[in-house]
Amino acid sequence: MSPMKQATLQSHFATHKDRFIEEWQDFLRFPSVSTNAERKAECARCATWLADHLAALGFTTRLIPTESHPLVFAERAGKPDSPTVLFYGHYDVQPEDPVSLWKTPPFEPTLINDRMFARGAQDNKGQLFAAIKAIETLIRADALHVTLKLLIEGDEETGEMPIIKVLHREQAALAADIVMAADTSAVSSGAPTITMGLRGIVHLTAVLSGPDHDLHSGVHGGRIPNPANALCRMIASLHKDDGRVAVEGFYDNVQDPTPEERALANAQPIDPAWYKTVTGLLPVGGELQYTPVERSGFRPAIDLNGIHSGYGGAGSKTIIAAQAMAKISARLVPGQCPERILKLITRHLQQQVPNGLTLAITEQGAGGAALRVALNSPAVVTARRVLGEISPLPTAFLWEGASVPILSHLPAIAGGDVLLVGFGSEEDNIHAPNESYSVEQFRMGFLYTGLFLNQLGNS
Amino acid sequence: MSPMKQATLQSHFATHKDRFIEEWQDFLRFPSVSTNAERKAECARCATWLADHLAALGFTTRLIPTESHPLVFAERAGKPDSPTVLFYGHYDVQPEDPVSLWKTPPFEPTLINDRMFARGAQDNKGQLFAAIKAIETLIRADALHVTLKLLIEGDEETGEMPIIKVLHREQAALAADIVMAADTSAVSSGAPTITMGLRGIVHLTAVLSGPDHDLHSGVHGGRIPNPANALCRMIASLHKDDGRVAVEGFYDNVQDPTPEERALANAQPIDPAWYKTVTGLLPVGGELQYTPVERSGFRPAIDLNGIHSGYGGAGSKTIIAAQAMAKISARLVPGQCPERILKLITRHLQQQVPNGLTLAITEQGAGGAALRVALNSPAVVTARRVLGEISPLPTAFLWEGASVPILSHLPAIAGGDVLLVGFGSEEDNIHAPNESYSVEQFRMGFLYTGLFLNQLGNS
Repeated sequence: MSPMKQATLQSHFATHKDRFIEEWQDFLRFPSVSTNAERKAECARCATWLADHLAALGFTTRLIPTESHPLVFAERAGKPDSPTVLFYGHYDVQPEDPVSLWKTPPFEPTLINDRMFARGAQDNKGQLFAAIKAIETLIRADALHVTLKLLIEGDEETGEMPIIKVLHREQAALAADIVMAADTSAVSSGAPTITMGLRGIVHLTAVLSGPDHDLHSGVHGGRIPNPANALCRMIASLHKDDGRVAVEGFYDNVQDPTPEERALANAQPIDPAWYKTVTGLLPVGGELQYTPVERSGFRPAIDLNGIHSGYGGAGSKTIIAAQAMAKISARLVPGQCPERILKLITRHLQQQVPNGLTLAITEQGAGGAALRVALNSPAVVTARRVLGEISPLPTAFLWEGASVPILSHLPAIAGGDVLLVGFGSEEDNIHAPNESYSVEQFRMGFLYTGLFLNQLGNS
Repeated sequence: MSPMKQATLQSHFATHKDRFIEEWQDFLRFPSVSTNAERKAECARCATWLADHLAALGFTTRLIPTESHPLVFAERAGKPDSPTVLFYGHYDVQPEDPVSLWKTPPFEPTLINDRMFARGAQDNKGQLFAAIKAIETLIRADALHVTLKLLIEGDEETGEMPIIKVLHREQAALAADIVMAADTSAVSSGAPTITMGLRGIVHLTAVLSGPDHDLHSGVHGGRIPNPANALCRMIASLHKDDGRVAVEGFYDNVQDPTPEERALANAQPIDPAWYKTVTGLLPVGGELQYTPVERSGFRPAIDLNGIHSGYGGAGSKTIIAAQAMAKISARLVPGQCPERILKLITRHLQQQVPNGLTLAITEQGAGGAALRVALNSPAVVTARRVLGEISPLPTAFLWEGASVPILSHLPAIAGGDVLLVGFGSEEDNIHAPNESYSVEQFRMGFLYTGLFLNQLGNS
């Protein structure tokens, strides 16, 4: 069996591009917003569509129920003695709000200047589907020799992991030599990128309650604690003036990068002008004694993801609101235990509650610990060679600030090295209005996945 | 002309009570929410209804247009040489949200156990309408001898005063010996109450902007300033740990009460158990070195009336929101210039903006300075006598924490002493869901207004 040539894959892509795009749009039309209970049926329909799609390619597929959304599991045996790859992805997407800021409807995928606009266009449906189309191409060309398992979940965006229980039950079926995923981004230069680290994540919802109804702020202002003011003080107390987190014990056991890791990370510095173009802001927040890439790659952080209390409409409404609510999350690095960090943040907040008010943590989740991949992992070495074939640019190594919680659990269950290569870009606006993914990014994901899986089976 | 007897008024009330209630409900059905531009036509319809109602009682009425909602002005000449009274009220109401917490629809007034539930049931439609029914009764009994002017506006709840321009133009028409209003509350014992002071008010909306769209908090957390976190720090910085306002210059020129005022105020202490029953909270906030009545009566305060940023739905959405918005108001005491306080708060906030973020004050209003009435005012002396006739309880003197901005301007324009007697109660839930006003409170307002206006004309 001769290895598949890049030119063959390129030609196949050109021939089938229109169909690939139509099928990708079919996938994007499902409003599979996993955090919204009202979209449960839509998530299930999306999972069924995906399982049917993979079955048509020759996979043995199963929908595995969880306490939340179903898992799609697909398997196809390869040559005897070839390695086993477990490909992980997710079919669920972030909520689409605020809908008013979308220029095209979030669940009516629209191709504009060769960019697909839709919720999930990139994260993760776009990246995942590019890989599926590469796999389809290898299968039809009799060039997929590895044993390939796909595990595609519907709870990645919830911060919860109902699938963990299932994974332990299915440990034998999941066994693999390599756990790979396409849910990451390339560096801003566009150079192919291997993601060497992900931050862990915990989140909680804090509700601070005071009076049993909204009070007139004239009658009562200055004589009772105002839950909205108090929650702001509590949130403010999470950080010191210099940007460091002020929660006691938060930095205990934080594992610093090696000098080599730090050097490779800083070899991909963030260009401030580029950063401002894509975010509207310079990277001037947080612990300024670290470089921006070090801050997101090697340092933990606490962010407020939302705060809501009282009046927000036009004009004024002079009330002291009965409650104030904050959604808080922390990004973690190796050495930080998610459950412990949740406890530390909760204890810190409890210690700040003023006399008269009551704090409830109404929801919380320990999404997963951080991941850091070894630079000399064989999967990393192979991927680097393939990426060198499809791009003239030297491969970049990225320690990512984002989290894919399941990837801190999956390798422990399935075995194997972790390999994270993705073609996302800052301008894709994932988690925000007008998410998009270009056909060119899709094509790069297609080429890489096709060559990597083919070469792995030929080695 | 003999003075009207209390018994005559009582009997008249009993005879006409059902009709009074039906007309009161007609008044409450108008959703005259002045801060909501979409309700402009409803406010105008309410004003027209009110003007027609007063015309039918024998008043010469005018609708005076303003830049916002129309003023209702009604006038009826009294005996020669009798004093002139300018009665002030407002037909606009607070927004009804959150609607989901109302047990009956806010604009379908519902009488339950002799309490009327509706937005505006008390503030100010209920208190105003009780006075109008007393005036109607005096007119029909030929017992209204004063020259009576009613000035009923539609912008009291907006924090803006578009009527100020009109009032200066109409100064001659407004001239009066006494400016009275029924927009205040009685002390918790239920004793008749003369309000001797009102706090002033200023308000502003602060919008803190960062990235040009919501960002992924994993990718960016810890390397850019988070507008929601930063706004919380800015809000927190408005107060010191001991509850004092930290804005520089905020307390300059604050006029402390006289020992007599302080003693009279503290003669009506807040019973903590009662306070907790009606608010759900003990009065344990603010400057604890002052008593609760001193805190709201003689001390200024800053309160957050609303804060909104980012995600607020179910589950988690791990974003750094592009913007955070806060609605802030301050209650003022004599000596504090509203415009100056607005400037001080704005300057303080501007000084706290972290590098990278931008603060905009998108809306602001200087509602009016504080009001403090002299204890020896002739109107106060007469009212105290009347209140002694209708209640066995000694009259209470109250320095109120709330604001009626126009009452800091109206006396200066119309001339005359200010007299504020109202029968509101904490359980009326004004500005909150399930606002209500009892028929008994309505009856007390009716009796007091009838006797006071009659005696003033007979004196």
